[in-house]
Amino acid sequence: MTRIAQIRITPIALKDPPLLNASGVHEPFTLRSIIEIEGADGTLGLAETYGDDDTLKRLQAVAPALRGIGTHDLAALAAAVRRHGLGQHDGPVLDLAPGSKPARALDKVFAAFETGLADLNARRAGLPLCDWLGGRLRDRVPYSAYLFYKFGRHHGQPYGVGDVGDAGVAGDPWGEALDAAAMVRQAQTMVAQYGFGSIKLKAGVFEPVLEADCLLALHEAFPTHPLRIDPNGNWSLDTALEYYEDPVPTLADMAELQRRTGLMLATNMVVCDRAEFAANAALGAPVRTILSDHHFWPGFRATRELAALCDTFGLKLSMHSNSHAGISLMAMTHLAASTPGLAYACDTHYPWQSEDVIRGGRVPFVDGCVALGSAPGLGVDLDPEALAALHEQYLRCGVRSRNDTREMQKHQPGFVKVKPRF
Amino acid sequence: MTRIAQIRITPIALKDPPLLNASGVHEPFTLRSIIEIEGADGTLGLAETYGDDDTLKRLQAVAPALRGIGTHDLAALAAAVRRHGLGQHDGPVLDLAPGSKPARALDKVFAAFETGLADLNARRAGLPLCDWLGGRLRDRVPYSAYLFYKFGRHHGQPYGVGDVGDAGVAGDPWGEALDAAAMVRQAQTMVAQYGFGSIKLKAGVFEPVLEADCLLALHEAFPTHPLRIDPNGNWSLDTALEYYEDPVPTLADMAELQRRTGLMLATNMVVCDRAEFAANAALGAPVRTILSDHHFWPGFRATRELAALCDTFGLKLSMHSNSHAGISLMAMTHLAASTPGLAYACDTHYPWQSEDVIRGGRVPFVDGCVALGSAPGLGVDLDPEALAALHEQYLRCGVRSRNDTREMQKHQPGFVKVKPRF
Repeated sequence: MTRIAQIRITPIALKDPPLLNASGVHEPFTLRSIIEIEGADGTLGLAETYGDDDTLKRLQAVAPALRGIGTHDLAALAAAVRRHGLGQHDGPVLDLAPGSKPARALDKVFAAFETGLADLNARRAGLPLCDWLGGRLRDRVPYSAYLFYKFGRHHGQPYGVGDVGDAGVAGDPWGEALDAAAMVRQAQTMVAQYGFGSIKLKAGVFEPVLEADCLLALHEAFPTHPLRIDPNGNWSLDTALEYYEDPVPTLADMAELQRRTGLMLATNMVVCDRAEFAANAALGAPVRTILSDHHFWPGFRATRELAALCDTFGLKLSMHSNSHAGISLMAMTHLAASTPGLAYACDTHYPWQSEDVIRGGRVPFVDGCVALGSAPGLGVDLDPEALAALHEQYLRCGVRSRNDTREMQKHQPGFVKVKPRF
Repeated sequence: MTRIAQIRITPIALKDPPLLNASGVHEPFTLRSIIEIEGADGTLGLAETYGDDDTLKRLQAVAPALRGIGTHDLAALAAAVRRHGLGQHDGPVLDLAPGSKPARALDKVFAAFETGLADLNARRAGLPLCDWLGGRLRDRVPYSAYLFYKFGRHHGQPYGVGDVGDAGVAGDPWGEALDAAAMVRQAQTMVAQYGFGSIKLKAGVFEPVLEADCLLALHEAFPTHPLRIDPNGNWSLDTALEYYEDPVPTLADMAELQRRTGLMLATNMVVCDRAEFAANAALGAPVRTILSDHHFWPGFRATRELAALCDTFGLKLSMHSNSHAGISLMAMTHLAASTPGLAYACDTHYPWQSEDVIRGGRVPFVDGCVALGSAPGLGVDLDPEALAALHEQYLRCGVRSRNDTREMQKHQPGFVKVKPRF
């Protein structure tokens, strides 16, 4: 065994495109915390989690109390998080990021360290993380194409004059996507580049009928790809009922669409902890697909327990993502490879970022999948120069906690947050 | 990492007293399998499970297929058990031992190897098993006094002429216990010897009114000890309803008894797997205490998942036992020490056995608890001579699968199995 000798927490900022959602639009930077846990024997464990001020403050408050704890001792970790984690969250809440809910404040801190310790222990055991987690059930993990309505460029010049990105100041190579035709082009580009075998549309942005038309256009362009839609709770019950009255042209298509996608019955917003799981079960489980997320459920062990809960109640399991870098991607991949019952291709925002902190460049996708190798732990290592550069970007970027609504107001001064909007 | 190099499975027979239950009476010997898993690096992992013919055959069928599997690879273990575990159980069923249910046939084989691998991995990591399992929540685990109605001696001379035990041929030091006064004496002896702080009566043997009187006598003798009763499903609904009408003299006592013990609402018989857990939840969870048993739930990881299920639905968790030796006792203790939400003192039959396979004699109880030390893994090692002697006893004893009814017919030729009896 070894004990925790030192923990380094480095906030970074990654450039993020102007992706639209129910709350507004992504800011020019997304924040992440990179956590390095060093064992007394020199082994390093890596984790990645939210980088907003509130999370950062809590991570930093807990870290010193973890020195000397055995790297397997999750009970001691849980006790330290309870004692030093700064109690209940009372800051602003972004309901698109379940990790920002007040009830998750301590869970996400536990998860960040739990996952880093798992990586450390797997490396010490000389095992790929998925094998250390109980053995791989598959050798590669499928992800889905995550489509977003988006602006062509950010407001102002957040990346500085002269920092022109790939397609002009504040721009990105993806360009604008505000209608069905542009969304089909976005999907074609993404599927061509990554090989994704299923498609998810982030919705809740435009009139539902326009978004339904967009799904139909996607279905026409990708007739064999399973489609998902996620309006992030931005529709009223009446709108949703009306929408589900006629999303596709025939009754047979309706039945098939619902059977194959679990539409309306998947959530990463209303079943995010055990109490909500029990509430859903008490209602006869109207929500039949639960999206896990090791950043807030919290951790690898809790995700395994969630899989057991879903199996017990006949629910399906999928995996949620926020904007993230390669450490989170590999953690998700190892976890997915060793979690029974994961029925769907996982979500990932990874194609929307262009920067990373890992050595050797970005994680590759083949046929929409991330493959698992035989390297110990996560199978990726930190690139210290990339980490330093992205931390420098964090120091300069000005964003300290995510606020998509405020960002949207820069584009549309009259924009207000209304929920549900439609 | 290391891989499985070799597995040895040794059936043993332990002397067992003539304890009465709903099915009949314990046979003179209880059978257990001792499993030694040797890693390629020489590390040894220990497990103990059922020793009946059916289990033994399945363990032996699976073991060769495990050679070469990584010791962390539970996915490969599960696959090997599915492939080589000899399919559905179709032998006789003893409903007092949930592990003997047909649906458990493969689960218990998985559990036996899973727990042995956990011990091996913990020893390799230099960690006590409870710490390897995620960190100890307590340093000692309380057990309860498990009282049984019993005959004074077995039928015939199962231990051979001249092998007089401690109290005559086929006898044992506990003597006969067929009424309330004798049961109070049994409790006094057991509490004095072990320090148990709570008491459980194995019932379903005599007229319910006699067993209720026995509980009242125990309450009088041990006014501060929590009491439990387990009729093993041997009462009809009418009898149970009548019983619960007046188990204790006042309404306040009734409410308190139910509040403190969860009487009638605890089970190790009707909620033994995930499907039964879901069925109980669908009924609003009338059974509010679930007894875990790592031998059939199955395994350490599954018990952790059961704890999560119980926590999610606000149910309480306790721990069941069958007759067992010291390896099972230590596995139960490490598991209990690292399992959140274990609300009750655990069950154990250990005081009823006098023999063991571990080095240094029997596991000690202090104040009714088994303490956890700092030795790696289970913290106990095999005594090869004791193992050989108890295997020799297995070869001679004639018992090959448990049958308490057949044994009772030796004492009472007209005895037939009726359920519920009362």
